[in-house]
Amino acid sequence: MDCIFCKLVKGELPADILYQDDEVMAFRDIDPKAPHHFLVIPKRHIATLNDLTPEDAALVGRLQVTAAQLAKEYGFDESGYRVVMNCNQDGGQTVWHIHMHVLAGRTLSWPPG
Amino acid sequence: MDCIFCKLVKGELPADILYQDDEVMAFRDIDPKAPHHFLVIPKRHIATLNDLTPEDAALVGRLQVTAAQLAKEYGFDESGYRVVMNCNQDGGQTVWHIHMHVLAGRTLSWPPG
Repeated sequence: MDCIFCKLVKGELPADILYQDDEVMAFRDIDPKAPHHFLVIPKRHIATLNDLTPEDAALVGRLQVTAAQLAKEYGFDESGYRVVMNCNQDGGQTVWHIHMHVLAGRTLSWPPG
Repeated sequence: MDCIFCKLVKGELPADILYQDDEVMAFRDIDPKAPHHFLVIPKRHIATLNDLTPEDAALVGRLQVTAAQLAKEYGFDESGYRVVMNCNQDGGQTVWHIHMHVLAGRTLSWPPG
């Protein structure tokens, strides 16, 4: 596997890790687009959102629950935040291991890209 | 309850519904920002992402799995799409019943707002 996020999970590449447990990991985006910008990923390799099965619902939901918990921990739950997941070229996906962007600390405009 | 999405769920307001089951409902955004732009919501009222509990992981994950299934059904799974959820003011939330935006049919730019 040549997936950079799998390498982050294994500790083979450095990351500014905010949270991890058996299933998920959160770390800062290396090219932040907001004062707070981090990614939440499943540790298991899933290439795109199209590869999710109904059995993965709880796992992908944990990305969202983890994002909300970190929002509270970092104090931007009340001011607000946006979560974004990109699939394939039109979505702007650049790493083929699903990841949830969490952006906060400024007012996010609409449309979202 | 004066929640417009709860009224859509109950059929008290019209919606262009793409999918529904006991837990989730998908319908077209009334102010689309892309050739395909729909929302996926839980039928149960949850005001913001901050109100999610760990027990809600499977439900919120079903929003994502439903989005991916609709992407296949409408034929934009391979070209790609972006999913977005907004929390509170900085995130741009305007209806206080959580909802996943799904946008496709054009190349979404970065940053996402």
